[in-house]
Amino acid sequence: MNEIKIFSPATVANVACGFDVLGFCLDSVGDEMVIRKTDKKGIFITKIEGGFDLPYQAELNVAGVSALALYEAAKPDCGFEIEINKKIKPGSGIGSSAASAVGSVFGMNELLGRPFNKTQLTEFAIKGEALASKCEHADNLAPALFGGFTLVKSISPLEILEIPSPDDLYVTIIHPQIEIKTSEARAILPKEVPLIDAITQWANFGSLIHALHTGDFGLIQRSLNDVIVEPYRSQLIPHYNKVKTEALKAGALGAGISGSGPSIFSLSKGIENAKNVKDAMKKVYSNTEIDFDIHVSKINNKGVKIIY
Amino acid sequence: MNEIKIFSPATVANVACGFDVLGFCLDSVGDEMVIRKTDKKGIFITKIEGGFDLPYQAELNVAGVSALALYEAAKPDCGFEIEINKKIKPGSGIGSSAASAVGSVFGMNELLGRPFNKTQLTEFAIKGEALASKCEHADNLAPALFGGFTLVKSISPLEILEIPSPDDLYVTIIHPQIEIKTSEARAILPKEVPLIDAITQWANFGSLIHALHTGDFGLIQRSLNDVIVEPYRSQLIPHYNKVKTEALKAGALGAGISGSGPSIFSLSKGIENAKNVKDAMKKVYSNTEIDFDIHVSKINNKGVKIIY
Repeated sequence: MNEIKIFSPATVANVACGFDVLGFCLDSVGDEMVIRKTDKKGIFITKIEGGFDLPYQAELNVAGVSALALYEAAKPDCGFEIEINKKIKPGSGIGSSAASAVGSVFGMNELLGRPFNKTQLTEFAIKGEALASKCEHADNLAPALFGGFTLVKSISPLEILEIPSPDDLYVTIIHPQIEIKTSEARAILPKEVPLIDAITQWANFGSLIHALHTGDFGLIQRSLNDVIVEPYRSQLIPHYNKVKTEALKAGALGAGISGSGPSIFSLSKGIENAKNVKDAMKKVYSNTEIDFDIHVSKINNKGVKIIY
Repeated sequence: MNEIKIFSPATVANVACGFDVLGFCLDSVGDEMVIRKTDKKGIFITKIEGGFDLPYQAELNVAGVSALALYEAAKPDCGFEIEINKKIKPGSGIGSSAASAVGSVFGMNELLGRPFNKTQLTEFAIKGEALASKCEHADNLAPALFGGFTLVKSISPLEILEIPSPDDLYVTIIHPQIEIKTSEARAILPKEVPLIDAITQWANFGSLIHALHTGDFGLIQRSLNDVIVEPYRSQLIPHYNKVKTEALKAGALGAGISGSGPSIFSLSKGIENAKNVKDAMKKVYSNTEIDFDIHVSKINNKGVKIIY
């Protein structure tokens, strides 16, 4: 096998009470990438589709940097061309850079006969992700690689836990087309938080993990609360509270900021609820000047996958 | 049935990363209480054994206050006598007041034909616990009533989750006979904590809940870390770090402060490890002037129970 085409999915990080550690994988939104072995050694980005102004030089490209990390570890007797069909908008808050970083290493690993496991692939992808977000984190990478819900227990050493989730869990996600700088989303967070709020957060987070294990939708609903980050970051997203309120009224189990925003995710039991939530969220932004994309997706339990 | 004798178990609250929300139940340590129906209406504490100076007046006694709370809700056509054989030392940090508060309401509920469920019994017991600890909390009450590991998701409304745990999990718990005032243990905690530490804590807590569900002892071990409370409260317990270090060296999965101390718990896989840990912990205090009690116990999955 000399060429592989893969689907590298969008992901939601943080998931309300799981700030910086929890994430899940989407099914219907993702980048497509072609990875091809070449005789010439090195990593070569040969095509970027999607209309975004992204660099071709491997050292400056997220997919290139993660590819180089794997390449240096594997020292293969070949090189690789990478074509990126970028379908996830950079800056949307649904793991655009993570999808690129994951796609290249997943594809190369397949072409090399899978010398690395998924945790090792995450280690390589972290290098690419760090190029985009200026820090090493894996809360989008882990769900993109492993699928489903993942808990990044620690970065050093890297430990990723796969959390089961009920079959009938659907996501509605809206991307208002505004720009939030990651630096701004980070600067707005306090360095210290009240202990009493931190306790509420881990009570909710522990409850959410329990609820995902037991498939208890009522408890998922009661656990999807973020008392630490949402009060700050939601200020950066116009109409956030209205979107969330309408999503809940329409039957969502919960809603929150996807990653550092501006996308807003909600979780629902069953596709019908998720569609109703879609209509409700859509309606809020339709009444404004803000353009948006909106998607309904099942939780993707496989993560990144081979198209051919 | 006019009389019942019950065993009301000791409990460990906080469990390292689960500060203020997680607890588990012990098997081999607990109070014994006799509850008896009387024609005369009211709650009457008629015997207190164990050598502790505890009040007989129901309104001033933890078991009496929780009994009164149930009594007022049930409005039965009888009264109750309560005999307390106090085997858990007050102030030991293993839920002495919770055991008393739970014992009376559990026993009365049995004699009345179980009109209340365990969550309702916890509500009554909270009133008794509040007498002892000056605040309403359920992190010892919940494991005493439900058994096993419990997560108190919220106090208002009261929501208690029963977390499964692997069969082969044992506790070693040492009670150095020093006094720590609950007020002092509380005052030593900061009002605010670094966000970065709070994230570490909920990563560990979520991981612990996952590990208990999956029976992953390695992950239980890696999750039993408290970066928020232990650094402060451990200062109040002489030789704490030495006891913990020796417990871990002897094979404990983890160790921490039980409740607000001074007891120190550790968890081990299998009774042999738990016994080795017992020897190691014992040795530390044997070389000091401090008296201590030490126990090995299985996790008690039933909680409070009927003796006859």
